[in-house]
Amino acid sequence: MHFSDALLLQSGKSIRDYTLAFETYGTLNADKSNVILVCHALNASHHVAGVYEGQAKSEGWWDNMIGPGKSVDTNKFFVIGVNNLGSCFGSTGPMHANPDTGEIYGSSFPVLTVEDWVNVQALLLDRLGVQQMAAVLGGSLGGMQALSWTLQYPERMRHAVVVASAPNLNAENIAFNEVARRAIVTDPDFHGGDFYAHNVVPERGLRIARMIGHITYLSDDVMNQKFGRELRDGPNIKFTTQDVEFQIESYLRYQGDKFSRYFDANTYLLITRALDYFDPAKKYGGKLSDALARSMAKFFLVSFTTDWRFAPNRSREMVQALLQNGRAVSYAEIDAPHGHDAFLLDDPRYLGAMRAYFEGIAKELTA
Amino acid sequence: MHFSDALLLQSGKSIRDYTLAFETYGTLNADKSNVILVCHALNASHHVAGVYEGQAKSEGWWDNMIGPGKSVDTNKFFVIGVNNLGSCFGSTGPMHANPDTGEIYGSSFPVLTVEDWVNVQALLLDRLGVQQMAAVLGGSLGGMQALSWTLQYPERMRHAVVVASAPNLNAENIAFNEVARRAIVTDPDFHGGDFYAHNVVPERGLRIARMIGHITYLSDDVMNQKFGRELRDGPNIKFTTQDVEFQIESYLRYQGDKFSRYFDANTYLLITRALDYFDPAKKYGGKLSDALARSMAKFFLVSFTTDWRFAPNRSREMVQALLQNGRAVSYAEIDAPHGHDAFLLDDPRYLGAMRAYFEGIAKELTA
Repeated sequence: MHFSDALLLQSGKSIRDYTLAFETYGTLNADKSNVILVCHALNASHHVAGVYEGQAKSEGWWDNMIGPGKSVDTNKFFVIGVNNLGSCFGSTGPMHANPDTGEIYGSSFPVLTVEDWVNVQALLLDRLGVQQMAAVLGGSLGGMQALSWTLQYPERMRHAVVVASAPNLNAENIAFNEVARRAIVTDPDFHGGDFYAHNVVPERGLRIARMIGHITYLSDDVMNQKFGRELRDGPNIKFTTQDVEFQIESYLRYQGDKFSRYFDANTYLLITRALDYFDPAKKYGGKLSDALARSMAKFFLVSFTTDWRFAPNRSREMVQALLQNGRAVSYAEIDAPHGHDAFLLDDPRYLGAMRAYFEGIAKELTA
Repeated sequence: MHFSDALLLQSGKSIRDYTLAFETYGTLNADKSNVILVCHALNASHHVAGVYEGQAKSEGWWDNMIGPGKSVDTNKFFVIGVNNLGSCFGSTGPMHANPDTGEIYGSSFPVLTVEDWVNVQALLLDRLGVQQMAAVLGGSLGGMQALSWTLQYPERMRHAVVVASAPNLNAENIAFNEVARRAIVTDPDFHGGDFYAHNVVPERGLRIARMIGHITYLSDDVMNQKFGRELRDGPNIKFTTQDVEFQIESYLRYQGDKFSRYFDANTYLLITRALDYFDPAKKYGGKLSDALARSMAKFFLVSFTTDWRFAPNRSREMVQALLQNGRAVSYAEIDAPHGHDAFLLDDPRYLGAMRAYFEGIAKELTA
């Protein structure tokens, strides 16, 4: 969907002539009340579920959750996956040309916030003629967008489903983001963000950024279980500081290499910064319950016991703030071993809890 | 102390004509029984305590613990601080010349293990005429050396004091080391480890390595308490992805910059690899209790509740393995907020427990 008009951003800058990539699944009902908007996290896109023509297997990042007969049942709901502005997966981003100059944006692409993304998503819904959604759903950074939706457009959704998320980043979260950003920015191939003109990619920095990220997505337990101290070429060590010795090293290098070949460095900076900045309680003196007083949605929050990136206590903060406002809140704390990544994985209790909640939403539609 | 003879290393390589930097504090008693050997961690040296001439303030990394009248009382003990081989603080390391070639070692410096360090320390004690020490003491990687001492030379110490340590690294520990190493090795200024010849230093990589390390040394709690989400140039965000916004970013950048100016990149690789490799239980099929059957020392272990690098359960593993062997073990789990760094900080309960234990050792000397 193309948008010609300039959109004023939180930074005071504006952007015009931009495109949003989105996908839909299921059928929009007559009164356009069965919409589920799915917001994505750092390394994801509008391709939430399903297969493209000729594909045997879905590359949709939430295909285990969303589809016909699944927890979020596309026989009942009209699901919209939208790629965030600034991404590198289809919507307008730093690798595209600035219509004002004809030059690639690069480092001049405006700095975006979660609030900006929500504003753009609202414009997309306007175009689709959707006034009120059944729910906004997101995990991690996507959960922050769902939360922000309830504050920016309280009347435009009946439910918000916030999975493995937090009401803001803590100092350690910001610290990991910052190390990743420094790795990218100090890569000589970054060229101040204008690497496109040099026909290079700051692959070294992106690799490091992804390796750091990956560590924070996994739990200690699952790392020990999957990799432990296993040597890749065992049984004996090779006495080398630079070659791979342990399986965990091999895994992280592989993840880093893969990521560096498809992810845009400027997008990485933008998205991690949007994460850092998100803090709806800030203008209420840090009082989250005051911030959430604007919300009108019913909430379902999910956290995972071994998630140390956005630990369960961060979800409980949101639950408490909502309860203090007398909002309807359901909360599931799933005992899962997989850390933050659990929100993307198959866990029967998790998928079951989601199914139950969305069945409730579906019943409201037909009531 | 200079050593001419070749020393066979665990890797099968050998090293000759090397020097160990060391310092001593206190007075060696007549029967040479009051020796406390202090082993250091990643970013430390033989300068454990005290001041150099003209200095107002000690730069000794354990000066709060070791000195006249302190927990490890140098009025009673003869304390030896020794700089590990391969370090960049005085002992022979990668920045020195290989006597076989006359060239700077660089990346050809032999890969070392904790066992190698202990063997070299034993040679130093031989030179000093010390047969049996009162104790070996170390924190973190230093604690691994103390543990290894009890297995390699069980009769050469009466006590081992192992603080904030672990019987091996887990997958997450190795993962963080590996990311740090990749940041260094992929820095174009690393030149395969032979950067000395190019008159450059892989500062970018060292900065990233140190920033990652620092995050793992601090607890989540203390980071939130010290930095939280505080902006450096508040109250408003500047909408920038590359400039410092948060205090935690400023702190990490400062720590990274400082470290990159004095720490050697090859040393960083060597020391983190020695950490990765340490695993005394490996040749006993992973059974730590079987490995520790060789030890004869009495043990004192200390851990800190908020240390997530070497969490208390890692110390408890050692305690259990020692108890299974019927060894005398004391264990203190200190409720401290500072994470792994706590082992270097002033905590009255921690310093008090150390004092009590070392007073006991001193009493044995005069008994």
